[in-house]
Amino acid sequence: MTALDDHDVRPTVTTGPIPGSAKTHLPVDDPASGRTLRVPQRRVGLSDGTHIDLYDTSGPYTDDTASVDVHAGLPRLRADWIADRAPIGGAVTQAAYAKAGVITPEMRFAAAREGVDPESVRSEVAIGRAVIPLNRCHPEAEPMVIGKNFLVKVNANIGNSAVTSSVAEEVEKMVWATRWGADTVMDLSTGKRIHETREWIVRNAPVPIGTVPIYQALEKVGGDPAALSWEVYRDTVIEQAEQGVDYMTVHAGVLLRYVPLTARRVTGIVSRGGSIMAAWCLAHHRESFLYTRFEELCEIFRAYDITFSLGDGLRPGSIADANDEAQFAELRTLGELTHVARGHDVQVMIEGPGHVPLHKIAENVRLEEELCGEAPFYTLGPLATDIAPGYDHITSAIGAAQIAWHGTAMLCYVTPKEHLGLPDRDDVKTGVVTYKLAAHAADLAKGHPRAREWDDALSKARFEFRWRDQFHLALDPETAQAYHDATLPAEPAKTAHFCSMCGPKFCSMKITQDVRRYAAEKGLSTVAAIEEGMRDKSAEFADGGGRVYLPLAE
Amino acid sequence: MTALDDHDVRPTVTTGPIPGSAKTHLPVDDPASGRTLRVPQRRVGLSDGTHIDLYDTSGPYTDDTASVDVHAGLPRLRADWIADRAPIGGAVTQAAYAKAGVITPEMRFAAAREGVDPESVRSEVAIGRAVIPLNRCHPEAEPMVIGKNFLVKVNANIGNSAVTSSVAEEVEKMVWATRWGADTVMDLSTGKRIHETREWIVRNAPVPIGTVPIYQALEKVGGDPAALSWEVYRDTVIEQAEQGVDYMTVHAGVLLRYVPLTARRVTGIVSRGGSIMAAWCLAHHRESFLYTRFEELCEIFRAYDITFSLGDGLRPGSIADANDEAQFAELRTLGELTHVARGHDVQVMIEGPGHVPLHKIAENVRLEEELCGEAPFYTLGPLATDIAPGYDHITSAIGAAQIAWHGTAMLCYVTPKEHLGLPDRDDVKTGVVTYKLAAHAADLAKGHPRAREWDDALSKARFEFRWRDQFHLALDPETAQAYHDATLPAEPAKTAHFCSMCGPKFCSMKITQDVRRYAAEKGLSTVAAIEEGMRDKSAEFADGGGRVYLPLAE
Repeated sequence: MTALDDHDVRPTVTTGPIPGSAKTHLPVDDPASGRTLRVPQRRVGLSDGTHIDLYDTSGPYTDDTASVDVHAGLPRLRADWIADRAPIGGAVTQAAYAKAGVITPEMRFAAAREGVDPESVRSEVAIGRAVIPLNRCHPEAEPMVIGKNFLVKVNANIGNSAVTSSVAEEVEKMVWATRWGADTVMDLSTGKRIHETREWIVRNAPVPIGTVPIYQALEKVGGDPAALSWEVYRDTVIEQAEQGVDYMTVHAGVLLRYVPLTARRVTGIVSRGGSIMAAWCLAHHRESFLYTRFEELCEIFRAYDITFSLGDGLRPGSIADANDEAQFAELRTLGELTHVARGHDVQVMIEGPGHVPLHKIAENVRLEEELCGEAPFYTLGPLATDIAPGYDHITSAIGAAQIAWHGTAMLCYVTPKEHLGLPDRDDVKTGVVTYKLAAHAADLAKGHPRAREWDDALSKARFEFRWRDQFHLALDPETAQAYHDATLPAEPAKTAHFCSMCGPKFCSMKITQDVRRYAAEKGLSTVAAIEEGMRDKSAEFADGGGRVYLPLAE
Repeated sequence: MTALDDHDVRPTVTTGPIPGSAKTHLPVDDPASGRTLRVPQRRVGLSDGTHIDLYDTSGPYTDDTASVDVHAGLPRLRADWIADRAPIGGAVTQAAYAKAGVITPEMRFAAAREGVDPESVRSEVAIGRAVIPLNRCHPEAEPMVIGKNFLVKVNANIGNSAVTSSVAEEVEKMVWATRWGADTVMDLSTGKRIHETREWIVRNAPVPIGTVPIYQALEKVGGDPAALSWEVYRDTVIEQAEQGVDYMTVHAGVLLRYVPLTARRVTGIVSRGGSIMAAWCLAHHRESFLYTRFEELCEIFRAYDITFSLGDGLRPGSIADANDEAQFAELRTLGELTHVARGHDVQVMIEGPGHVPLHKIAENVRLEEELCGEAPFYTLGPLATDIAPGYDHITSAIGAAQIAWHGTAMLCYVTPKEHLGLPDRDDVKTGVVTYKLAAHAADLAKGHPRAREWDDALSKARFEFRWRDQFHLALDPETAQAYHDATLPAEPAKTAHFCSMCGPKFCSMKITQDVRRYAAEKGLSTVAAIEEGMRDKSAEFADGGGRVYLPLAE
């Protein structure tokens, strides 16, 4: 492991619990090793004496007691697990263990976070419908699983560019993103000090880290796509593999003959990696080294247990280009490559669009599953319309919830700055929280066993005017409370049986509670009781001379 | 018309064009009257010499030249149309004219805004699948049509409460909401000076105004639901009808026997009107006057051409309560009432939920259409999850886009303050823009003939690095430009062929354009050309001795 070097890098990161939550650890026995795994949870204690345990991605940073030293990096949680393990047929990948019927500690850990049986994780990884993206050189990360039969995951992109940002900012963005729920983080740096930025990020990351190695390779050759070569690329991949990158985007599906298919598009090629490879293919008039050397790449990935994220270099960048020939031609090639990688016991995810109108979303999932053997789908949004720059976290959350419901396993977030600028810290939070709610909406629709309890706990708190519980159960407690404070800042409002929307006389929930109390007192809580009462009233009506509308005073 | 009284009310409202847009008017001949209608459009002029005309809801406030006097109210656009018209069978409703085969100027105006044939508007109104909500006492409003075969519409709620807000604030909120695209506005005031607030709003509103008369009726009886009566309610409806309210929410489907169906709900009754009527029914142990006097109400609505918005008083307020017996029992009653109203030639919309998980949304539309004769569905969101207070404009936009795609005709916006506080001016804008993008996503998915051209114009501007055109075409040009300025404020960046996300070397769009130019120069723009080139390379390869990877230097 490269020692962290602090010559002019002094990151400070956000620590401490989220308001109303405390970090707890669920002890999980691993019979194979005799160890007890400590699986993190965010426990929200409620004022009615109950609590709810939520999935936690934030690592030791939200512990009450843990001391965090970003210069030392996080504790090496998996170091012993990795050291203890014998390769299977030369492979150290989760896929190889899963196929051999072995439940690794990583599978057990991930299963406990999901609240599912460890065998279901093993089985899904074995058939390639789920992945556990964990490089053996990233022992700091807490294991998690990505697959359509588990909770929908969210990735946050960070990274500097030639135009802005520093190492310290990016480390804090990583910690900040996981604080609000990012399940993985991609470092997409293309600016200065790429290697050093990544080292700081990986050593301090409690979640899997992804990269797009072609970006750093392009930097190494001075930014000219035609100057790229397999050798430069391979060395870059190994450099990043040694650092512990858990999954890598590889745009190996951009074939030379697909490039003309983009010629009449409204927005051409919008993937950076895709456009770089298209330029290379055309300049050399041959297939890219990512495609021709794919089996060699598999061998490198196998040695570290890096997961492929096969990039959609030809994804649509506008509604006009959605589901076109270029996009699906590449998807077919990604399907071929998926099966090649699986033959090497290497795990695979498939990246997806982009910009897709609502009625074309389902087809993306159907084709991906059919062509790529149900490898976990990992989509960017998609944006359901192009007309709202500044609000593309929302246009894309609409598409993201929809595609995740249909089976996408991980969603790459989009921030409000999409298409306009680089996200700052606030944008990262907005993007992550927006995508967590989209992912959760899909979990509900898919009927994940533990999804509904969170909604029910919050709605129960809302109905019972437990305002603080409502804030604490929110995905973003700080914003929820700040918005309440904006209208009713005084302390008594936090226990009031109404709120500012309606005021005391117009509070439907208060009236409902009055209605329930009245009905209980009068024995009118069931349909039968009501109907009996109606018969009595009907008799009264007949006795009263048949006037339809009795004076209200009576 | 009540004269506007300014004793301590001095509203100032936002005027002037949206950046990059100019108000134009499409002249449309109305053969019946010999008049030429002036149909407003928002014209966005582009730097490539083209322009695009967008639907405009903002009234004279965004005209370059119009002088606005909120004390005088807006010009009475429809005054002559209304005066000229003879009743049909005693009715002055758009439904009555439509059934008689008459294309009113309102239908022609609305059709021109949609870009459709006026006959299609008449036909949809005649069968009740669309409504034109225009009280004959609100001649200031610009006609528009609500129905599943037209553009999806957005309503913005405003209104004071006992806790906050003034008349001046509410008038500005109305103007502000229509500026950003609200197609109708509901005044839900429950605080002081309800009548006066509404008068200012209606006289200055270029869009239809909706209310919930039971709120004001409840104020009149001191806030005790049991003290309400038909007489108080009827007088309130007539008072509001005279002011020009275009549509009214009536919770006539809350029957006494449905109240116990809500007893085991997580969040009981969350509709204010629903809880008020449930309290009344239970206290009096009989059906509400809204139900028993419904035909009398129809006669009042018929005299003014007020549109019913039949309220879903028992809508679910949480994921747990979605699609339950209480909700659908009430919907069946709303269906009965729809047919009663139609018998009086009164127009009807049906209000819908609320909180519904994604997989239960389609059923809401299917049942509404089946039970209520395809009356336009008008839904509040729905929110696709309960766990994100502070972000409920987004949780609900996810559900709104989905339900609108399935056939909902109008979406009631939700602001970020939902469940937490009263929306301020910024929240109103965020809510409207969020809902406009959700509505547009649905228009795209439904294949509305004019929807795609907006997306294509924006994406084309994006691909061609026409930054200013991109801002001007955005739903919210101000925010789009502000976000770009945040990273690259300098003037040259507005014409730069890259942006801050990637920097110049990593700009996929720039590389794509290079690729296209290169391909055109070398004659490699088609698949055939590429394949011919591949055959040549293949021959070269054989000649070169069969080495697979030639040195890149060559």
